[in-house]
Amino acid sequence: MSLKTPVIVLNVKSYEESMGERGLALALACEEVTAETGVVTAICPQMVDLAWIARQVKVPVFSQNTDIYEPGSCTGWTVAEAVKEAGAIGTLLNHSEHRLRLDVIEHVISKNKGLGLVSIVCTNNTPVTRAAAALGPEMVAIEPPELIGSGISVSKAQPEIVEDAVSAVKKINPGVKVLCGAGISTGEDVKAALALGAEGVLLASGVVKAANPKAALLDLAGGI
Amino acid sequence: MSLKTPVIVLNVKSYEESMGERGLALALACEEVTAETGVVTAICPQMVDLAWIARQVKVPVFSQNTDIYEPGSCTGWTVAEAVKEAGAIGTLLNHSEHRLRLDVIEHVISKNKGLGLVSIVCTNNTPVTRAAAALGPEMVAIEPPELIGSGISVSKAQPEIVEDAVSAVKKINPGVKVLCGAGISTGEDVKAALALGAEGVLLASGVVKAANPKAALLDLAGGI
Amino acid sequence: MSLKTPVIVLNVKSYEESMGERGLALALACEEVTAETGVVTAICPQMVDLAWIARQVKVPVFSQNTDIYEPGSCTGWTVAEAVKEAGAIGTLLNHSEHRLRLDVIEHVISKNKGLGLVSIVCTNNTPVTRAAAALGPEMVAIEPPELIGSGISVSKAQPEIVEDAVSAVKKINPGVKVLCGAGISTGEDVKAALALGAEGVLLASGVVKAANPKAALLDLAGGI
Amino acid sequence: MSLKTPVIVLNVKSYEESMGERGLALALACEEVTAETGVVTAICPQMVDLAWIARQVKVPVFSQNTDIYEPGSCTGWTVAEAVKEAGAIGTLLNHSEHRLRLDVIEHVISKNKGLGLVSIVCTNNTPVTRAAAALGPEMVAIEPPELIGSGISVSKAQPEIVEDAVSAVKKINPGVKVLCGAGISTGEDVKAALALGAEGVLLASGVVKAANPKAALLDLAGGI
Repeated sequence: MSLKTPVIVLNVKSYEESMGERGLALALACEEVTAETGVVTAICPQMVDLAWIARQVKVPVFSQNTDIYEPGSCTGWTVAEAVKEAGAIGTLLNHSEHRLRLDVIEHVISKNKGLGLVSIVCTNNTPVTRAAAALGPEMVAIEPPELIGSGISVSKAQPEIVEDAVSAVKKINPGVKVLCGAGISTGEDVKAALALGAEGVLLASGVVKAANPKAALLDLAGGI
Repeated sequence: MSLKTPVIVLNVKSYEESMGERGLALALACEEVTAETGVVTAICPQMVDLAWIARQVKVPVFSQNTDIYEPGSCTGWTVAEAVKEAGAIGTLLNHSEHRLRLDVIEHVISKNKGLGLVSIVCTNNTPVTRAAAALGPEMVAIEPPELIGSGISVSKAQPEIVEDAVSAVKKINPGVKVLCGAGISTGEDVKAALALGAEGVLLASGVVKAANPKAALLDLAGGI
Repeated sequence: MSLKTPVIVLNVKSYEESMGERGLALALACEEVTAETGVVTAICPQMVDLAWIARQVKVPVFSQNTDIYEPGSCTGWTVAEAVKEAGAIGTLLNHSEHRLRLDVIEHVISKNKGLGLVSIVCTNNTPVTRAAAALGPEMVAIEPPELIGSGISVSKAQPEIVEDAVSAVKKINPGVKVLCGAGISTGEDVKAALALGAEGVLLASGVVKAANPKAALLDLAGGI
Repeated sequence: MSLKTPVIVLNVKSYEESMGERGLALALACEEVTAETGVVTAICPQMVDLAWIARQVKVPVFSQNTDIYEPGSCTGWTVAEAVKEAGAIGTLLNHSEHRLRLDVIEHVISKNKGLGLVSIVCTNNTPVTRAAAALGPEMVAIEPPELIGSGISVSKAQPEIVEDAVSAVKKINPGVKVLCGAGISTGEDVKAALALGAEGVLLASGVVKAANPKAALLDLAGGI
């Protein structure tokens, strides 16, 4: 399994605006935008909605996280096999709101490969991006924490962070694709990100909290 | 919301045997057993299957865990509001495979009350059971860790643990109901548990790994 | 081992002002104040300074934390046996800056009893205080998190919190002593705390960050 | 600050055999062996003994761990500034018994550089070693978990792991030195490790649990 790029990955986090039916509506909005524009979109539903949404939409679905355990006695944790069975094609790992141990990231990436799942590892700066790339995931997503949810786009406010991340990743492992996140909310932000070498964006509030999420997605897609 | 007792609570953990369609089949087996016997059963699906299963069955559904966060920026965590919106009526907390901080347990119990969700706090011995009862959840479930998955029933092997737990709970907070778990697999085990003052059982492998889960549930229900 | 009350327990946290020689100076200031006033004081040095300070002063010394592990292969963790060998007479547990799992608190309290070490469990509200008391530590220390480091004393700003904690603890386990913390900085605060039923105070910045820590301690001691 | 190589780094973990006075004796044994053989040795005392031992010996002393926090309100955690003030020259990070988040490892390495402290990052396999090297610590220490404490030396049983680690590290960051650990107990093991490109060893039980720790250290030193 792989994720076509350029791509817009929508992480719906745990917002009130993305729970249950509202989460499904967001997934369907992604589906419509892809149908209308041809731009690849993907969605990361809330954990408890994962199977319910993945079983109803055609866009690629990702888990917001995957835990390190094997199937079995691990109550309340999410194993990669369950993510796959739910219909997701991969998972975010190490999101700024869900940082993981280095050995856990490596283990889950490696396990995901065996299962045909895509790993997107979130990172906060260039050294961490370099380390993540060294682990060989399909993608890294650089998100300077201070810009997350700020409405100030990393691709415009700190273009050198994106450029540095792309160049660091390509040096260590040219097969790893780079997304950028934090503050992305418009097509202009997406365009700037791609111009810097990113192959997509990871975003949340810019769409989830938009008055009209579909319109926000269309605007973003316009940047590709 | 409350959970009628006596009750059989089935925690499906993260077993291969309880993922996706197999998890749904287990929930439907609970539904059939309740329909056929009148015995209350409840199920705790895998996290990513929660909404998908809760939206399809009539038996009470519980989350295997709930995290402490508020709705919002908490990627990969499960908030109580999402558990409720998924259609669950409550949550396990502090399972032996998912121990929680004392302050977290208290906070989630308190938050769940406000949302009308049932909290079942798992405990490992009498002092911890006493502490859990002092927090005022609807239920505590005592499960000596050494017996979990052992096939040796706590209600038969260590009846004094169940008796002590019931008596300690009633002294601290008579409104809290006591379940017992660990090694429960037959109607005899359930009968013994109820005779010791428990108002139900919490179990996993005895049903999930049974050759015929429905038959196993029927046997358990026969103990009530 | 036990800790005489009323007592002033000084937690030096990880402040610059309490590292190394400055931490030793704070411990010696406690010693002098006890010598001059007869008021019992105790100190919780920084983790890495524990043995070094405990071996040089006569006041009771506590660890700021103790981990759950047994002596052996647990690199970088602090076991109760090492705390004892370092010369400490006990430990804080579950400080608001170091919350612990319920089962860990219970296990360490129980282990400490076997080793003759005193456990002081920090709590944030009445239900958690009740739960902590149910575990039977020598002391609980109630510290409403919103007042920690505020300079607004819990004993004056929210006397009902201290009263409720004392009454809840005595109902569940009359042998458990109650300290109060958060915002304590003057003898008046201490006096108010004792009047509400507390048997001492737990504080940090009020002394550590004082222009003259010894003078601050003397002022506090004056409240007893 | 830097650590001369080849080096024998002794991690005393939390063994009964390394607490308090026994820990000091181990540090003094290192000192004697260095004096007698010229081989560089370093010691990682138990956390609570760090300042007490570092202030009494001339061999380089390391913390077994350092937490991510800044000096201040972080009760029970160990900040880099306190490690330095205690007299240590650096720290282990991410030991197999104390795995850390990727972002934490990066942050502490970076902070340590500013403070002149040496970071030794433990790793479990080649991808993790590569990621750790990408973060630019002074040293990585590869320790296959299945060999830790086994008495079977990684340098003899799985020489390819050491070779792979050395080659992976040099490709990513030639300035990073490689130690190897797990099962090292004799001078032969050390010799084999150096022949594979390692610049030292990290070990624990082979010395701490030896009938004669100094003799064990002398044997190890003989391999250099």
